[in-house]
Amino acid sequence: METRLDTARVRAAREVIDPVFLDTPFYECEALEPELGCHVSIKLETANPVRSFKGRGTELVASQLAGTAAVCASAGNLGQALAWSGRKRGLDITVVASRFATPAKLDRIRALGATLELVDGDHELARDRAAEIARSTGIRLVEDSLDLETCEGAATIGLELVESAGSFDTVLIALGGGAMATGIGHVLKELAPDVEIICVQPVGAPAMTLSWRERRVITTSATNTIADGVAGRRPIPEVLADLLQVADDAVLVEESSIIAGVRLLHTHAGLVAEPSGALGLAALLENPTRFADRRVVTIICGSNVNPPDHHRWIQAPSEIQSLR
Amino acid sequence: METRLDTARVRAAREVIDPVFLDTPFYECEALEPELGCHVSIKLETANPVRSFKGRGTELVASQLAGTAAVCASAGNLGQALAWSGRKRGLDITVVASRFATPAKLDRIRALGATLELVDGDHELARDRAAEIARSTGIRLVEDSLDLETCEGAATIGLELVESAGSFDTVLIALGGGAMATGIGHVLKELAPDVEIICVQPVGAPAMTLSWRERRVITTSATNTIADGVAGRRPIPEVLADLLQVADDAVLVEESSIIAGVRLLHTHAGLVAEPSGALGLAALLENPTRFADRRVVTIICGSNVNPPDHHRWIQAPSEIQSLR
Repeated sequence: METRLDTARVRAAREVIDPVFLDTPFYECEALEPELGCHVSIKLETANPVRSFKGRGTELVASQLAGTAAVCASAGNLGQALAWSGRKRGLDITVVASRFATPAKLDRIRALGATLELVDGDHELARDRAAEIARSTGIRLVEDSLDLETCEGAATIGLELVESAGSFDTVLIALGGGAMATGIGHVLKELAPDVEIICVQPVGAPAMTLSWRERRVITTSATNTIADGVAGRRPIPEVLADLLQVADDAVLVEESSIIAGVRLLHTHAGLVAEPSGALGLAALLENPTRFADRRVVTIICGSNVNPPDHHRWIQAPSEIQSLR
Repeated sequence: METRLDTARVRAAREVIDPVFLDTPFYECEALEPELGCHVSIKLETANPVRSFKGRGTELVASQLAGTAAVCASAGNLGQALAWSGRKRGLDITVVASRFATPAKLDRIRALGATLELVDGDHELARDRAAEIARSTGIRLVEDSLDLETCEGAATIGLELVESAGSFDTVLIALGGGAMATGIGHVLKELAPDVEIICVQPVGAPAMTLSWRERRVITTSATNTIADGVAGRRPIPEVLADLLQVADDAVLVEESSIIAGVRLLHTHAGLVAEPSGALGLAALLENPTRFADRRVVTIICGSNVNPPDHHRWIQAPSEIQSLR
């Protein structure tokens, strides 16, 4: 296996990342078993100041930054995390986001003191604009999944899984730009090679999955999913190359399954998950035979939802009916 | 300070308690500040297999048990935790609960393999029945808050708070039987005596608070609160004696404030809390002047809710209006 990542650097990263993002809860959630037909362990990345795993990467970025400013494009979670890590160190952070991004995420980016610029288009336009700002001002561009700090920060999750007492057969990882999948995948393939790494992406934002299947970059013309955290159209070649080394499979899931996953996590685990955080459960729901009786880990990677959306998603179909 | 607890034993307890219950998330939740007017840090006790802090105590109980069986009365969380700790060690666990207890809690107790006996009355009747079972069968009666394991298990939360990097002025602790309040209170009064310990109980279940204020046991004739986890009527004298040593104040909060607390935790922190877990936020909401700009810790002690109840509690008043 030859990826851009380095496990020794991942170990060292833990010395730099604020402990508030590390050693997150990891436990078997038996109450999910009857619905899913397999043993589900949860790695919970939402109980921290930015409610997603992204702080692991931005702590690395911010602690190693050469200058005093940085800019990133973000669907909302990376921007929040970079704003948090930057504020802590007195850095000027600019975040570029789509004006269609989840308002709750944009509010938190502003509240954390970052400069927020909205573009009238999707996440790919935000990426273009962030690159333009970096070029014109000379400040550091933080590119999610391309920049190794973002991958190796996320990879610390993999170390925690390997060092845990529990054993498991499969890890389900939300797939967007690929930082989390290549990060966790790299560490597990090196330290626990028998564990199956399955990436999960929405049918409505399949670019990286299609690229992984075809073994070449495939871009798409639009995305259509509530899982805003993983809704990209232009996979990064270097990240795809790493993903091809570490992923055993990449599956696509329907929107209805993602919503069902959000609801199951609330009902049976008492957890708030944003749609990207429920992709693993969606995959289990769609493939009961494949996962029957297996010991599966799913990473609840974020909980930044608009409350009214979450209210709607967690209603049981019968309750929704009764409200009509 | 002279309580029944011993800090050295509390330290030793951490070697015995399953790590899945220890070193829980502790972080500042800035998104709550605008609503509450103070700095709120959350100690999250819900991301574990039983969704409450009670596993800390039952791990101690079960690991030190002389026989092979135990019985406890429970509103649902202690019973779940004792069932979990007992199953792990091959023990026979019996749980006695009110038939009015939260169904989601009773379902989990059964699922964890314990024998569940329901009484046609409230928690105090369940306590009587559990004691009767212990007398007639000779098995160990686990009495929440009276038995030191339950207090010293909960006290490990206090050690984690003291050892954390953050500093704080006040800790708000849900008050029921008193195990958590005396446990955390003991450790903090010994190791961080400047921290203010405030217990919070619902107006509808005020027995321990009234007793603390009068410095003698005061029983009440009924309880009326959604905070089922703290709804007792007969304080235990030994626990009151400890509480008088460690608590700086005990306050009562209205049901509407508890619901508002549950809603704020969902909306701004992305957390599911059962009503007992939102008592601290209720106290902040009712006393904005007292807590203005202070650094407050609140322990989210449980998340075992009936999903439809939680759906109702987290609706904003305007949303509820629009559904009518």
